[in-house]
Amino acid sequence: MESLETTYIFESFKIPECRLSDDFQTLLDNPVYSDVTLVCGHKEFPVHKAILSARSKVFQAMFEHKMLENERSRVEIEDIDGDIMLEILRFIYTGKIQNIDKLADALLPAADKYCLERLKVQCEETLCTTIDKDNVADILILADLHSATQLRQQSIDFINTHLQDVLETVGFQTMIRTHPHLLADAYRAMASLQNNIICPPRKKQRTV
Amino acid sequence: MESLETTYIFESFKIPECRLSDDFQTLLDNPVYSDVTLVCGHKEFPVHKAILSARSKVFQAMFEHKMLENERSRVEIEDIDGDIMLEILRFIYTGKIQNIDKLADALLPAADKYCLERLKVQCEETLCTTIDKDNVADILILADLHSATQLRQQSIDFINTHLQDVLETVGFQTMIRTHPHLLADAYRAMASLQNNIICPPRKKQRTV
Repeated sequence: MESLETTYIFESFKIPECRLSDDFQTLLDNPVYSDVTLVCGHKEFPVHKAILSARSKVFQAMFEHKMLENERSRVEIEDIDGDIMLEILRFIYTGKIQNIDKLADALLPAADKYCLERLKVQCEETLCTTIDKDNVADILILADLHSATQLRQQSIDFINTHLQDVLETVGFQTMIRTHPHLLADAYRAMASLQNNIICPPRKKQRTV
Repeated sequence: MESLETTYIFESFKIPECRLSDDFQTLLDNPVYSDVTLVCGHKEFPVHKAILSARSKVFQAMFEHKMLENERSRVEIEDIDGDIMLEILRFIYTGKIQNIDKLADALLPAADKYCLERLKVQCEETLCTTIDKDNVADILILADLHSATQLRQQSIDFINTHLQDVLETVGFQTMIRTHPHLLADAYRAMASLQNNIICPPRKKQRTV
């Protein structure tokens, strides 16, 4: 009977999938017990202060500041489009993002504004895959403006490894005038790069 | 310069971990904007109707029913201990469980009560690893009472593969008296098992 025992007792359990993210998506779609409405242009989002506060230090501070106002309050958000706010809220409620390929450039500033670090880096990664000689200056300016350090570094690296192609583009020429500090940073990185090529680290020399 | 380009442009991004579960644990630990208090014995849990409703159909129905009462309501829960309720709330807020090894037998009824299917099956799986000849009857009774179908099946399989050991235990003798329908189910399963051993399916016979 030993083989039967093994067959039956250790049969694996069918454990239902974790529904945490899906359940909070349902709450976003059908926001019962919401206690504040975010207004972005023509779109209104009834949401939950508790959830927004738990996920974003910026919303937390905003609601603490607004607590003296009427209970069922409305918050006008003028600098973020409704479509972008929907994705911000989706990230806050579910940890997931949709349409990042289309929206990364607009989502990055919003993710930065609300201190959503993971979303911000996901936008940086998406934007990095779109870098070419014509847009790299604009992407560097965007990354610099919103402290997107990884995208900023990748943009500078791209410029320095494609310098001849990038140098004459309209974007790069504009950047030289409008954001000279970025040119200085790129130039400094190039110097460091050349230095590494000409003088590899000592340890490596010893092993050769 | 081609090798440099490859080195720099495709360097992988360091993406921060998803904090969804951790952020909601923080909300449970420090429940700002809570709108209802659950009272279990001496313990009180200020919680959020929105979150409990989104994760449990039973809480959803309870709060819909209670909406006519005062806004900052209290709900007395008499049949669940405070320690168990804390784990139920942890599962609801974060999707995670702590101490399942110690609490599975008390958590299973609570998970069943609040329709937390994933938690329930995780309790079933934990309890299954503790089955022995002396407790299998009690575990079968528990599984039967709370519609824990996978644990119920595994308990019956254990009984039928260890029948001689189980038959004389106090638990099994008690079960015969108090839950004769479970004895009947186990007996029926045994008949089916023996039938499969004596007469394997036709297809298998043909391939021999």
